[in-house]
Amino acid sequence: MADHRFEDSANGLTNGHEMGKSNGMKTTDAEDGSSSRADELRSLLNSILAQLIPFVQQSDTERKAHQSHREVSTSSLVDLHPPKALRAILTSNGTLSLPGTGSGQAGLNDSLSSILKYSVNPSAPGFLDKLYAAPLPPGIAAELILAVLNTNVHVYQVSPVLSLIETHVTKALANMFGFTGPRAGGINVQGGSASNMTSIVIARNTLFPETKRLGNNAGGRQLVMFTSEHGHYSIEKAAQQCGFGSESVVSVPVHPVTGEMDPEALEALIVREKALGKAPFYVNSTAGTTVLGSFDPFAAIAEVARRHGLWMHIDGAWGGSFVFSDTLKTRALKGCELADSIAVNPHKMMGVPVTCSFLLLKDLKNANLANTLRAGYLFHDKAGEEEDVEDSAEYGNGTTNSHHEAHADDEDDWTPPDDLADLTLQCGRRGDSLKLFLSWQYYGTLGYASKIENAYSTACYFADLVDRNPDLLLVSTNPPPCLQVCFYFAPGRKMVHSLDATSANGSNGAHSQSMAEKVGKRNSIITSRIAQSLISRGFMVDYAPALSHEVAKGSFFRVVVNISTSRETVQRLIEEIMVVGRGLLGR
Amino acid sequence: MADHRFEDSANGLTNGHEMGKSNGMKTTDAEDGSSSRADELRSLLNSILAQLIPFVQQSDTERKAHQSHREVSTSSLVDLHPPKALRAILTSNGTLSLPGTGSGQAGLNDSLSSILKYSVNPSAPGFLDKLYAAPLPPGIAAELILAVLNTNVHVYQVSPVLSLIETHVTKALANMFGFTGPRAGGINVQGGSASNMTSIVIARNTLFPETKRLGNNAGGRQLVMFTSEHGHYSIEKAAQQCGFGSESVVSVPVHPVTGEMDPEALEALIVREKALGKAPFYVNSTAGTTVLGSFDPFAAIAEVARRHGLWMHIDGAWGGSFVFSDTLKTRALKGCELADSIAVNPHKMMGVPVTCSFLLLKDLKNANLANTLRAGYLFHDKAGEEEDVEDSAEYGNGTTNSHHEAHADDEDDWTPPDDLADLTLQCGRRGDSLKLFLSWQYYGTLGYASKIENAYSTACYFADLVDRNPDLLLVSTNPPPCLQVCFYFAPGRKMVHSLDATSANGSNGAHSQSMAEKVGKRNSIITSRIAQSLISRGFMVDYAPALSHEVAKGSFFRVVVNISTSRETVQRLIEEIMVVGRGLLGR
Repeated sequence: MADHRFEDSANGLTNGHEMGKSNGMKTTDAEDGSSSRADELRSLLNSILAQLIPFVQQSDTERKAHQSHREVSTSSLVDLHPPKALRAILTSNGTLSLPGTGSGQAGLNDSLSSILKYSVNPSAPGFLDKLYAAPLPPGIAAELILAVLNTNVHVYQVSPVLSLIETHVTKALANMFGFTGPRAGGINVQGGSASNMTSIVIARNTLFPETKRLGNNAGGRQLVMFTSEHGHYSIEKAAQQCGFGSESVVSVPVHPVTGEMDPEALEALIVREKALGKAPFYVNSTAGTTVLGSFDPFAAIAEVARRHGLWMHIDGAWGGSFVFSDTLKTRALKGCELADSIAVNPHKMMGVPVTCSFLLLKDLKNANLANTLRAGYLFHDKAGEEEDVEDSAEYGNGTTNSHHEAHADDEDDWTPPDDLADLTLQCGRRGDSLKLFLSWQYYGTLGYASKIENAYSTACYFADLVDRNPDLLLVSTNPPPCLQVCFYFAPGRKMVHSLDATSANGSNGAHSQSMAEKVGKRNSIITSRIAQSLISRGFMVDYAPALSHEVAKGSFFRVVVNISTSRETVQRLIEEIMVVGRGLLGR
Repeated sequence: MADHRFEDSANGLTNGHEMGKSNGMKTTDAEDGSSSRADELRSLLNSILAQLIPFVQQSDTERKAHQSHREVSTSSLVDLHPPKALRAILTSNGTLSLPGTGSGQAGLNDSLSSILKYSVNPSAPGFLDKLYAAPLPPGIAAELILAVLNTNVHVYQVSPVLSLIETHVTKALANMFGFTGPRAGGINVQGGSASNMTSIVIARNTLFPETKRLGNNAGGRQLVMFTSEHGHYSIEKAAQQCGFGSESVVSVPVHPVTGEMDPEALEALIVREKALGKAPFYVNSTAGTTVLGSFDPFAAIAEVARRHGLWMHIDGAWGGSFVFSDTLKTRALKGCELADSIAVNPHKMMGVPVTCSFLLLKDLKNANLANTLRAGYLFHDKAGEEEDVEDSAEYGNGTTNSHHEAHADDEDDWTPPDDLADLTLQCGRRGDSLKLFLSWQYYGTLGYASKIENAYSTACYFADLVDRNPDLLLVSTNPPPCLQVCFYFAPGRKMVHSLDATSANGSNGAHSQSMAEKVGKRNSIITSRIAQSLISRGFMVDYAPALSHEVAKGSFFRVVVNISTSRETVQRLIEEIMVVGRGLLGR
């Protein structure tokens, strides 16, 4: 299919059409038919690929060096500067300029060079900081396809294929989680926070339909929701955003070691809130908490939720992707099919570029009922249009769109709307489903299963290395629940022991409290200093505040293994931590 | 910079590394160091560009045919099928398959071929249906860069450059709208609906800070907001989402011809709501309404808002981009600097791929106060980290992050957070700002001004053509307020006249009512039938329900000119409408 056209100008810098010269003056005339946008686009993409491919290649080289135990001279990770310093650099080299006259392809390439030089390269093997990591080729390809298609998936007519793909891929995902009923499905949302927030809106509007018109306090109810101490802060953010107030979120205790929500505590809190006159309506459980990676006991939580009439949501933004592996699904996601909704972000574990997030629903009709609103200019009344012109006055309701509103009484008649904006809080949306869809086809379910199982195996290997190292102290369990491993740098495991001893002596309560605080703060600083020092050595890892039951211990490392991480890389990380940590403490 | 590497394998289909053979089995081994991801990516992108470039080229060819008044044999617009039929096609040709074993590059290219064949090509000259259109080369390039960088702009450390670019470009945009104070700025949001919704949350939390903790009804207030009859439905959607209920939105009448909000009616409604015991707190005005493209009288609305203590927002998702042209800004955006917040979507008028939307604020601190929540695992306490290890116990508060919460009393000390998630309702976010940033550099402010002015001139030309055509009846004014032109197909302008005559006779009230309904419905059907028939002729245009003051007239066309639309294209559209319309009526 017209390959020759592409080959002709593989080197954008020398293509004969001079399209590279686009600038503000030349391209201002929309009616200048002589310029071909295809040529301009090809030339521009070729020129930026000449920078982007080496950017990825650097990290390949570094990855191979890790695997063959060679030194890495310069890491591909990042040339990091504090905000003020970086702003000065980007100002003085012209990168931040927003000129009157456009600088065209040459200017774009200059900016790109500077952007790549100072950005974090998420493909670097040492990028183990966040729950997302290296973008994989099919996802990158999908982004380019989305950009050229520039599809808005709000109404079918302008997004026929991408609308069907969203419906198809969300249904397939929902099925994997055990949502197998005829109305199981999902929607693509702009991120995990937005998916969780949307689940709260759908839960409220489903359980108390009048709130959609009258607001949260319809009927004088004070709605409250529940999430674990370790749940993501997006629940609290959603509570304030959605007008419940952050105090409407009740924090449920977790098991001190595993970090899993305590279902008995949940039930006790529900009972307590009811006794206080509140109306419990929603519980968020988590598949893969942000810090420890814990999976809540879904079956037990579902039982409590059912007994008290609560909507049960699973925030599987991180750990939900385990569903691709039968082994890990059985191990971690048991009971997930009992939930009402599940959020899952393939952009985290699956190498799909950010953002790609789904809210899956046992009954998609609830999303339709909760989120639809009339918008005659956008959603057209097909009923009327199918009638004969002369007979038209007999049918339909012309300018309104009541058929788009699903009717609660009308259970059997409901079919999913073709115009997906009738399911979502957004109007315009990107077709982000395509990124998972094409990646799924590229690797296959088994390919992803294998990638995720390998990553989990690497995380277990890493946890074992930490556990056997006398100068490190695991915080997560061994084996870990998910792909992250949490631990303290504690030479001889002394810091913690001495702290425990102080508490145990109990000679002076106030004194030991202040000692404990001092040790904890010192430890937090050691952790953050090591993390900072690792960056120039090619590793970026994150750290988290002490868990609530051992707050005096201070911050610990959270290292996130991803589907591209090798065992050699995590070995090397431990070596680097030991070198930097010992240097810091002068040992 | 390593250009030769790219040149070497410009034709991905024949490159020597056999990277094109990636499949589920081969790529499952994360530790297989022999494969180079850079090679795989290059090969894959080359192969998909061999399909994407011709996709764009088809529309170039069609565009040139319009401009030289030649026939178009096959339109590049779309091969459209109803949902059920398309699903059958995509199922039978294997496009929707989600296989166990991955199909790699070959499979991805097969899917792409089918996706392109049945998708709408927004670069086709006849795509005049929605408020977005053809994506331009720098925006497409920016999407590819974003995909490779895979940056999450939530915290500075992982997104140093893109965080600074977001801050820089939002401040520059805010300045253009006349938000020039020291704390003017903005945030990148996932779309216009989300931007409008976020402005409501910020307004509420700023005016009634206790609502953030206690919810909308804190203090027993019943908050209500105002938007015009022609305002976007996202305000109502946000009202239900944010727990006010859709009935909290008061609809303000507009001028029947211009569609502009009536500021006196706004004030009367505010007074009425206060008398009813409600608490008015927010007014949305619009720069470029969805149907007519009207610009509300911002200065007058601001005066009312100020008098009654309301937050004033401008939904400039569509018309806000006029700010790039001094002429159009003066004409349409007068008084915009008096607002508290403005939403603007460069993905609509500026050829930036969807989505690229900003919420601009006169005082960015309000976004910080409204949206920040503690998340110790994510936002780290820099204060502590800067202290000496041994002295650490004396400083800071270790595991909490109170410095991230801006303090209302502390006006002069506030500085914008480096971690942008402290300003937003989302946690993870794409760096969509880059798309506007690189496009702005590429075309320059003057380049965009010229593009948008040309488009407006084309819209005026088109409105004039309609106005002079005896078989068409303008609904928008001439010249139109923005880039869309609304009109009826009404041969001899008869349909409307006869309807008016029926009403005027007044012989039988009930009868004329039913006659009017009949004529309106018939007209709606004619409009939608013409729109459907135009698709196979290379034109996609939208239509909207009758305006409220002339509801009996039925649906009319809304044709949206974009910055790539030529005068020849709109001429041709009118010719096509006449042919199809006359055919439909048998004339």
